[in-house]
Amino acid sequence: MIRKILVANRGEIAVRVMRSCREMGIQSVAVFSEADRSAMHVRYADEACFIGPSPSSESYLNIDKIMDAALKSGADAIHPGYGFLSENAEFARRVAEAGLIFIGPSPEAILAMGDKLTARKIMMDAGVSVVPGTRDLIEDEDKLKETADSIGYPIMIKASAGGGGKGMRLVRSESELVSSYRRARSEAGSAFGNDVVYMEKYIESPHHIEFQVMADSHGNTVHLFERECSVQRRHQKVIEETPSPLMTPELRARMGEEAVAAAKSVNYVGAGTVEFLVDNDLNFYFLEMNTRLQVEHPITERVTGVDLVKAQITVANGEELPFRQEELTQTGHAIECRIYAEDPKNNFMPSPGLVKHITEPLGLGVRTDGYVYEGYEIPIYYDPMISKLIVWAQTRNEAIERMKRALYEYKISGVKNTIPFLKRIMEAEDFVSGNYDTHFIEKNPAVLEIPSDCNQECEDMALFIAYLDYTEKMKKLVSEPTEVKNGGSSPWKEFARRKSVLRF
Amino acid sequence: MIRKILVANRGEIAVRVMRSCREMGIQSVAVFSEADRSAMHVRYADEACFIGPSPSSESYLNIDKIMDAALKSGADAIHPGYGFLSENAEFARRVAEAGLIFIGPSPEAILAMGDKLTARKIMMDAGVSVVPGTRDLIEDEDKLKETADSIGYPIMIKASAGGGGKGMRLVRSESELVSSYRRARSEAGSAFGNDVVYMEKYIESPHHIEFQVMADSHGNTVHLFERECSVQRRHQKVIEETPSPLMTPELRARMGEEAVAAAKSVNYVGAGTVEFLVDNDLNFYFLEMNTRLQVEHPITERVTGVDLVKAQITVANGEELPFRQEELTQTGHAIECRIYAEDPKNNFMPSPGLVKHITEPLGLGVRTDGYVYEGYEIPIYYDPMISKLIVWAQTRNEAIERMKRALYEYKISGVKNTIPFLKRIMEAEDFVSGNYDTHFIEKNPAVLEIPSDCNQECEDMALFIAYLDYTEKMKKLVSEPTEVKNGGSSPWKEFARRKSVLRF
Repeated sequence: MIRKILVANRGEIAVRVMRSCREMGIQSVAVFSEADRSAMHVRYADEACFIGPSPSSESYLNIDKIMDAALKSGADAIHPGYGFLSENAEFARRVAEAGLIFIGPSPEAILAMGDKLTARKIMMDAGVSVVPGTRDLIEDEDKLKETADSIGYPIMIKASAGGGGKGMRLVRSESELVSSYRRARSEAGSAFGNDVVYMEKYIESPHHIEFQVMADSHGNTVHLFERECSVQRRHQKVIEETPSPLMTPELRARMGEEAVAAAKSVNYVGAGTVEFLVDNDLNFYFLEMNTRLQVEHPITERVTGVDLVKAQITVANGEELPFRQEELTQTGHAIECRIYAEDPKNNFMPSPGLVKHITEPLGLGVRTDGYVYEGYEIPIYYDPMISKLIVWAQTRNEAIERMKRALYEYKISGVKNTIPFLKRIMEAEDFVSGNYDTHFIEKNPAVLEIPSDCNQECEDMALFIAYLDYTEKMKKLVSEPTEVKNGGSSPWKEFARRKSVLRF
Repeated sequence: MIRKILVANRGEIAVRVMRSCREMGIQSVAVFSEADRSAMHVRYADEACFIGPSPSSESYLNIDKIMDAALKSGADAIHPGYGFLSENAEFARRVAEAGLIFIGPSPEAILAMGDKLTARKIMMDAGVSVVPGTRDLIEDEDKLKETADSIGYPIMIKASAGGGGKGMRLVRSESELVSSYRRARSEAGSAFGNDVVYMEKYIESPHHIEFQVMADSHGNTVHLFERECSVQRRHQKVIEETPSPLMTPELRARMGEEAVAAAKSVNYVGAGTVEFLVDNDLNFYFLEMNTRLQVEHPITERVTGVDLVKAQITVANGEELPFRQEELTQTGHAIECRIYAEDPKNNFMPSPGLVKHITEPLGLGVRTDGYVYEGYEIPIYYDPMISKLIVWAQTRNEAIERMKRALYEYKISGVKNTIPFLKRIMEAEDFVSGNYDTHFIEKNPAVLEIPSDCNQECEDMALFIAYLDYTEKMKKLVSEPTEVKNGGSSPWKEFARRKSVLRF
């Protein structure tokens, strides 16, 4: 039985994993770099081990240091979170070799799914729908044209080791074919040290819909329904929701079945995500499988009632899944917004730094998974995510209104952040109507028009709260209040004016 | 249609009502006293009206001032919250006379249920089970003995206008009867200006179980299942949960039916709560009906998925309830803890004052309904509740573990608070096993044994966070971190030591 888990991660996901550990009576061990010395996950854990300098390569990506911390702390299992070493087969192998439990699938499953062309072949053999295209590496430039013709333009050239849009080339006609092929190979080679590329039919305006799967080591594999992740900016998910507005019960059943088949084809154990592209005619195609917990897992937790981290730990313990497919249901609607320390008015430039003020939304149907506190300095070294804001309501429309309410309540000052951008999306007609695909932002450029005072608003708010609460002078002035709405004495007029500007 | 609601309340419930208003696109108007000039509900509202000095009698209980604010602000409805004027029939009448909508039942229903003896008679006529006892006022002291004998000792003498334990006397034998009767009458007379008392059989070690009801003006009345509220301290609820550990499906059906009958007997419209006493043989007896939203309504919201404030507004708008009895279900288990600014080590003495630091629990299955922020000064004039902490999980055991986790994360400094007391209850065997009634605290005096450093812990935490984050000297020191667990350099040793003390 697992009694102490080292969480090989940082930020919100480290805290989130530790929360479930605490509820299960399992001790948690944090690892931290130089930059994370006062990070929340270090405070939250029962124990904490320093593992090196701030750059990830010298700490969170350093397998030796993490193994050393795990062995020294007496942990009997390692939870990798997402990112960092979570999909590193070598890490999973090292953990097992040290006699510890890796909370995730086998190194073989990670390897198989980590290489896109390998995964594609396995899926084809398992009868899972894949995008029409090549089965193997194309080495011969002479065969390029023939292959492309048989697939039909437009086509995508993709790096087998790829991810995040690197090594990908869209080819709309024969004239671009050879040059795109060469550029994709060279980009893949320098980005991943592996220049294998393959060709797929390009799906126009697809939906990105993924299925959560969970499997135990006793042969039980289930799916926990879909997540609609089509609101993306430069291939990065921005907003996720479940159920998908596009989904029908029949399509859900078929996709769920193929997601389970995909997991079974690699003897998957643990939590995983099978990503599909869905076209406008509701044809769906396997895209890739992520062999770890997904950032957006909380929306699935909310509609199914399942704590996915607890389920991961249960399965890693060798126990059976505590639920069967027929016991799982979707109740209501959940939406997640990713809040980043990025400047939406300046091309989403990262905005690390001191968080002077933070007020997180609370109340009915709202969950925040974060790690940032007032006075915390967001480091420059890592992904600048501040938190994930998840809402649930009985209907999609109510969930959107609740998200607007929660975004209104969310106040962060000191670092620029994407809340104003997310507010714009919640107001976009195409989002509200559920009529969107992965090209949503290009088709709705208005969501990028951020009001000019968006960050100033938060700065003002923090300053004014400080002013109002702590200034003796102000306290004296506000002791003669009168009706706010229609003016009245000057401090309250000023308060009302600011309130109308700040809307809080 | 309601477009602007004045919330005639303060604190967490005012903010909670405004949250639902915001999600429904309804404007909110706050009212505030002198002491509440920088309160959260004033900031949250779209508009705010000053209504007078800090004592409730001159502001939140002053009907004239609240009506004046409602008319000046152009509100078309008033939500009374709980406490203050929420069960004042005169207020409900004045609101209606001014042509505004009172978000609650009719003045007649409030009046009928406000007088315990009247309510008792109505319930008897409606076939609702009441505690065996008298139907009318006992005026003749000579008949006391006869009546008491027919009921059988022990008996309770209760004030018809009573509440909160005032004007109540437990009589265990005939020798105490007359003196107890006289004292009850005199206490009731001075406390409520009404010395009517009546007699009931005293139920030994009862459970306090209440049913949430909702009714519209089209004749639809439903119940939203029970809330177990037996963990009480001096007749004040401390912890509530749903489902009740005592409940059986059969008992739930019977009690739910009588709760609906109780509401129908006074043509009830809106949200209300029918309170029952349940004895150890699962006999149940009508206790009283609260004609307003209950403090503990969030646990019902969590297991049913219904936003009760939205339902109140819908019904006040003259619309039909959006659900029928057969559509309502209970999913999982919810627990609420009331967090008070009271000193559990000093007989729960109120502890108002400046909140120096507050960290609210977040993450999966946790809801906090509060209104206190860092730098806020909890006034001396009102109920010292800080917030309500609500957790949900699939099972009762998991919900208890989640509550423990949430209480662990909750950090408040500057004011003494009841978190250490609530932690003790979560660890008490009788609570964990669900084996408790309204005498839980007397039977488990260990829950009152609070560790001596409980408040110091939070003080230390706040000071240390400040020290760690803001002190340049410390920043320099912690730039040479080493492994925490086994000691290492001195600042980290100190950090580890404090962490082990603070467990955070």
